[in-house]
Amino acid sequence: MTEHSDRVANASTNASVDPDTVEWPVSLAGVTESIVTTLGPNDRWNAAPLGLFAGDGDENDDPVTAKTWGNTRTRRNFHRQGEGYVQFTVDPVAFADAALSISEFDEPILESANAWVRVAVEQVDSGTEGETEWEEWTLRPLEANVVAETVPTIDRGFGAVIEATVAASRLGVPAYDQDALRERLEYYASVVDRAGSEREREALERVRDHAEW
Amino acid sequence: MTEHSDRVANASTNASVDPDTVEWPVSLAGVTESIVTTLGPNDRWNAAPLGLFAGDGDENDDPVTAKTWGNTRTRRNFHRQGEGYVQFTVDPVAFADAALSISEFDEPILESANAWVRVAVEQVDSGTEGETEWEEWTLRPLEANVVAETVPTIDRGFGAVIEATVAASRLGVPAYDQDALRERLEYYASVVDRAGSEREREALERVRDHAEW
Repeated sequence: MTEHSDRVANASTNASVDPDTVEWPVSLAGVTESIVTTLGPNDRWNAAPLGLFAGDGDENDDPVTAKTWGNTRTRRNFHRQGEGYVQFTVDPVAFADAALSISEFDEPILESANAWVRVAVEQVDSGTEGETEWEEWTLRPLEANVVAETVPTIDRGFGAVIEATVAASRLGVPAYDQDALRERLEYYASVVDRAGSEREREALERVRDHAEW
Repeated sequence: MTEHSDRVANASTNASVDPDTVEWPVSLAGVTESIVTTLGPNDRWNAAPLGLFAGDGDENDDPVTAKTWGNTRTRRNFHRQGEGYVQFTVDPVAFADAALSISEFDEPILESANAWVRVAVEQVDSGTEGETEWEEWTLRPLEANVVAETVPTIDRGFGAVIEATVAASRLGVPAYDQDALRERLEYYASVVDRAGSEREREALERVRDHAEW
């Protein structure tokens, strides 16, 4: 029952478009998880999770921001290219792959994207947390497209997959209590076991494989 | 950027509608959390969570099912009325209220519903788990309406609120390890603290209040 509207909010081919008028295709509040694709030196698009921090609504004074953690492909490609494609997908396998493995594509837009936004990125801050260097970036939409809107649903299995990717990505990082992470992973696995869809089960298997958990 | 289509999938006023052709307004797989409103003897609509178990796609042979746990208003009203309104909402406060308090309304449709389905319910099984009597029901859609479709997003704060309501509802139930529940609740609170929207913070406060946690 999805609706494929293929509605281009602001076409990049329209030279008269004022970038300030391009809007995010979702309403952002708190932190929203996305997948960003960035063009690498191998001419392929790398997909990785990116947490979007909502601004206060006035995008010029207080734009959406995101942090890169460590010397990742996303960080290097942001520096090299100054832009990327932020995608909104609810495919648990796409998310698990992007989070825990090198996930690269020939095209910037993921097949499972419900919407995407090409953003200009600018580094505005940096620091260190634990042993990890982070950089903070502003993200300004240049072009946005809604591919498919749906009735959003609450799926505990899906949430459990997302949390499992977070916990798995912290395995081996000394700042985190490893026993607590493993207990949480077992609990998320039990939620997927009880409430998950086939696709969520597949995603959890990817988490187990990638994280050797 | 939501799209209010107010599309009535099958109007109940159309007497020629074959109930077998009314479809769920979302694609169900695994367990999907919903809120069901049922008419009580006080002539008010009681809102409570209901986990929908997807059938195999053939709704006649293998319909959507749900379980009621204990002698709840939902169970009693299902027996009395034989129907209810299943709603799909992603408002964390509506979900927390429905899950943890007596939440009653004059009208069956929640303000925050992105879609709703009037369903005929039939009890098909029952049993006991721990000290709780459950009943299993089939749910057959009689009438469905999509109110607003959106680009679905991944919000860890939202997921944490949902998991917190689940954990909070198990506090005091001997079958569950109470220390593990409290540890999980603290973790979910930390996720909402870091990643939550204003609405998710408000919902978590409701969980704290209702559960005296």
